[in-house]
Amino acid sequence: MSDLILTTFSTVPKIVRGLVRDLRVRWALEEAGLTYRVATVPPMDERFPDYWALQPFGQVPVLTDGGQHVFESGAILLHLGDRSPVLLPTDPTARSQAVQWVFAALNSVEMAALPWMLHRFNDDPMTGPGAAHISRFLTGRLDTMERVLSDTEWLAGDFSVADILMADVLRQADTFDALSDHPSCRAYVTRATARPAFARAMADQLALFNAADAETAAREATS
Amino acid sequence: MSDLILTTFSTVPKIVRGLVRDLRVRWALEEAGLTYRVATVPPMDERFPDYWALQPFGQVPVLTDGGQHVFESGAILLHLGDRSPVLLPTDPTARSQAVQWVFAALNSVEMAALPWMLHRFNDDPMTGPGAAHISRFLTGRLDTMERVLSDTEWLAGDFSVADILMADVLRQADTFDALSDHPSCRAYVTRATARPAFARAMADQLALFNAADAETAAREATS
Repeated sequence: MSDLILTTFSTVPKIVRGLVRDLRVRWALEEAGLTYRVATVPPMDERFPDYWALQPFGQVPVLTDGGQHVFESGAILLHLGDRSPVLLPTDPTARSQAVQWVFAALNSVEMAALPWMLHRFNDDPMTGPGAAHISRFLTGRLDTMERVLSDTEWLAGDFSVADILMADVLRQADTFDALSDHPSCRAYVTRATARPAFARAMADQLALFNAADAETAAREATS
Repeated sequence: MSDLILTTFSTVPKIVRGLVRDLRVRWALEEAGLTYRVATVPPMDERFPDYWALQPFGQVPVLTDGGQHVFESGAILLHLGDRSPVLLPTDPTARSQAVQWVFAALNSVEMAALPWMLHRFNDDPMTGPGAAHISRFLTGRLDTMERVLSDTEWLAGDFSVADILMADVLRQADTFDALSDHPSCRAYVTRATARPAFARAMADQLALFNAADAETAAREATS
């Protein structure tokens, strides 16, 4: 029995399936060949104070590793990186490079991409001055990533957790066609998501939510 | 002579002085009592390709530690944390706790606060559906931080880099009065910024930009 437990939501609306951040952790676990089991909590349900004590924002994922609980997908991926050189190089300079790109994915690129996605998700015309600034912010970040990715396969030498995070951030933005003018970014997402570990992680996330649907349907049919 | 070099912009517009992210690194260096010297580059100036090679987004800060260059303030603070137990606890469980809050500051709180600030900065009325979503996003994050900070002095036991980042994120948002309904968040910012290391870091950032103004004025007076 594995000592790694990934906690995620028991179900989510169809529109965000494939985008829940447990995917980033599942992907890393699959890359490293680490076995794990899944626990679930109902989304944002205040009747589960024990869960909120572990994850004060009520979000997922949380990773439990023996007696230790880790929240924030970035922190979880660094934690797993310390368990597997497949995820994070052991050479100090290469490791530092990967850690920089972990933060760049989350604090330079996703910080532009996520608010842009929130506007698109809400069918916002993005004509107001705040929205226009956010569009320019994202374009600037993607222009940088386009330059970087035009002549490198992965961000820090071999594939690492930095690529899991950056590829997932870019993939999510591209569900709203963010990468149509950034072909090297799109090719990077295609390259990253072609990895068998990504496919297994995605299939497992979707299977969990589909099983929840089936259970709900069965309960409704017999009630 | 110190082997630590902090690179920042040679000057920035007055409205962002005190908000430039080199402050986070200066603050950590002051807390740890690490001496450093400052190097500057003109902001976002493409005539400095060597700098763009170190920092692909053209942003600041970059920390040079011997032969190693680190960008992303989060990555720099973890790097410095490995040099000083004042910044990051050495006990693995406490360290993991601090790392989680480093990511929470940057990827859960700042990811809501920064786009909200961009709207406010642009005098956006925030009535559109995207802006309204961002307001709710920030309020939710601040509500969590209010609960957390109502009964803890610092986020991970003793003061750590997690507090430098979280306090700076909240402080920046409060330049637009974000914390008016979140008194524990505001008290935390007051507590953190009352530290002598913060005061020195802030004074040093402002002194650098003031010196650049004086130099420009002298040059204009004699031209």
